[in-house]
Amino acid sequence: MFKLITTAGQARRGILKTAHGEIKTPFFMTIGTAGAIKGLIPDEIRQLGGQVILANTYHLHLRPGEDIVKDAGGLHKFMNWKGPILTDSGGYQVFSLAKIRKLTEEGVEFQSHLDGSKVFLSPEDAIKIQHKLGSDIIMCLDECPAADKDRDYVEKSLELTTRWAKRCKDYHSKYKTKALLFSIVQGGTHADLRKESAKQLTEIGFDGYAIGGLAVGEPNKVMYKMLDETVPMLPEDKPRYLMGVGTPENILEAVERGIDMFDCVLPTRNARHGHLYTSQGIVRIKGEYHKEEHFPLDPECDCYTCKNYTRAYLRHLFNAGEPLSLRLNTLHNVAFYLNLMKKIREAIGQGKFKKLKEEILAKI
Amino acid sequence: MFKLITTAGQARRGILKTAHGEIKTPFFMTIGTAGAIKGLIPDEIRQLGGQVILANTYHLHLRPGEDIVKDAGGLHKFMNWKGPILTDSGGYQVFSLAKIRKLTEEGVEFQSHLDGSKVFLSPEDAIKIQHKLGSDIIMCLDECPAADKDRDYVEKSLELTTRWAKRCKDYHSKYKTKALLFSIVQGGTHADLRKESAKQLTEIGFDGYAIGGLAVGEPNKVMYKMLDETVPMLPEDKPRYLMGVGTPENILEAVERGIDMFDCVLPTRNARHGHLYTSQGIVRIKGEYHKEEHFPLDPECDCYTCKNYTRAYLRHLFNAGEPLSLRLNTLHNVAFYLNLMKKIREAIGQGKFKKLKEEILAKI
Repeated sequence: MFKLITTAGQARRGILKTAHGEIKTPFFMTIGTAGAIKGLIPDEIRQLGGQVILANTYHLHLRPGEDIVKDAGGLHKFMNWKGPILTDSGGYQVFSLAKIRKLTEEGVEFQSHLDGSKVFLSPEDAIKIQHKLGSDIIMCLDECPAADKDRDYVEKSLELTTRWAKRCKDYHSKYKTKALLFSIVQGGTHADLRKESAKQLTEIGFDGYAIGGLAVGEPNKVMYKMLDETVPMLPEDKPRYLMGVGTPENILEAVERGIDMFDCVLPTRNARHGHLYTSQGIVRIKGEYHKEEHFPLDPECDCYTCKNYTRAYLRHLFNAGEPLSLRLNTLHNVAFYLNLMKKIREAIGQGKFKKLKEEILAKI
Repeated sequence: MFKLITTAGQARRGILKTAHGEIKTPFFMTIGTAGAIKGLIPDEIRQLGGQVILANTYHLHLRPGEDIVKDAGGLHKFMNWKGPILTDSGGYQVFSLAKIRKLTEEGVEFQSHLDGSKVFLSPEDAIKIQHKLGSDIIMCLDECPAADKDRDYVEKSLELTTRWAKRCKDYHSKYKTKALLFSIVQGGTHADLRKESAKQLTEIGFDGYAIGGLAVGEPNKVMYKMLDETVPMLPEDKPRYLMGVGTPENILEAVERGIDMFDCVLPTRNARHGHLYTSQGIVRIKGEYHKEEHFPLDPECDCYTCKNYTRAYLRHLFNAGEPLSLRLNTLHNVAFYLNLMKKIREAIGQGKFKKLKEEILAKI
């Protein structure tokens, strides 16, 4: 299911097999929360070298509902994407978007952020929904404790996450499906709790391991320290997924520490705000400074935006509030991230990862 | 410059030559007000059979300014469209969007709708700006009297429009440019004033004639009557452009009365509101009714949206407020209009225009 090809220190290059094709690791997943990427069609993601799209159980459960997606022939067909899809379990969104009504051993009752209606989600429900969506990589339901919770709370919480993960696996195992099941390491910023969480989950055994609850406001140094402590506790022969991370720098640092999978809203959200990634650092396209720049956003980039439009035009679109602005900006930022991952994979293969990392960080 | 190929009653099929290629008439221009189509790239317009994009002098003058567009190499290069561009003169927008400060023989002083700054536009300015944009078909500055103005006002106004048109031609003639210059017939809903306006403008002589100030709220019957009265006053060997029109029905009725050129915000604006044109009439995609419709929006349409997505998915995107909704909806509505024009041209060529018109109107 997961095959390591090369390692360079802790950094790894490998192949992850899914029901919808093989994925070269390390990889970045483009966010398609509600079954759509912001302004882009899946064909464009594939053309840019994108391998996996991430969608959210929470959002799709609330709207349009997993039964409609199932009737449509599954999420792949519904959104017209032939490659692998990973679905988040809904855990993170329940704890960040919804108003929680009641958290019990059984599951979590919350209010929909859309219409306030009451929804109950158990670990079994989370898996059942993801089965209906037809996801290739499904995530266990976890509790994400808020950043201000004390050590005692975090410790109890990670134990609940373990018990829920066990229930997810039991439920998932009853069905014949090629979907891979990943569990999520929690433990806040406590190194020993992270280790404990990793230990408990690996004892149960999953197809892959995610590290959740990081990049939620803690300093980068703390995040890297948590990776240093956690990753060695995870089996070498399973993929490792750092959820919701991050900046290009975060990704380089995490790859160096043995992470294989990433997702993050940064490229798409920043595109919306006109913050555009380039080989020379971030360009804030709104600025007066760019109004007569009749040259490409990033001359080192060969995406459609950079090949066909100038900074002056992108600035004009942004300031005029044209919908095409979001599309061209998103296309470029996603291209930047996917291209970064391609360079990382190549560099690991050639034993030049450290050099690549230094070169990129020196410029941005 | 303009060559008639076939006529069927008053309906005509022809070829209009411009500096950026030949255009088959009758045709519909996709709106790119500020140098961008809502969510689409010009390549897509070309693939759908779109021949001409319309941009607005008023908007581009205010933002980013014609000098920036000129420095970029002209509007074609700025927005990456290789085909012909028609630019409206700004007349209509000055009278609809801006707060007018002073209308004199010399020109019009108005407040920008963007920042309230004072701007003066003379007929010569309007042509100069369009020259800088590099437009292929440029429009004379006209006064569009509000619909509630009395006959006396409309009469004086059309005479001002004539004098301005003469100044536009004089200014335009001083420059070596391949751009075609069109004047605009006014005269409100008064048949005799429409005729008088057409007479005055044809005496001066232009490359083509637009009919302005219609489709501003009057009943369809009145608009068709104005066409019946005005078109016969226009030279047969010049293209005729009905500005800002209209619904598929309006276009069919106007082609039947000898109109060659159209532009309208309806396909793009309606796409934004989820009102989608189909061979069976308008579909309001928001509706509950469509939530389990796992089939294409219009089975008779072969646009990307209809080939790859279902009504259920389009409804989901619209209700979730996904930017992809605007893109897929706009692509389809523009395809519908461009396809309608293609059918119209073919039918005129085959002497079957009346039959086509009846067939389409019976279904929508």
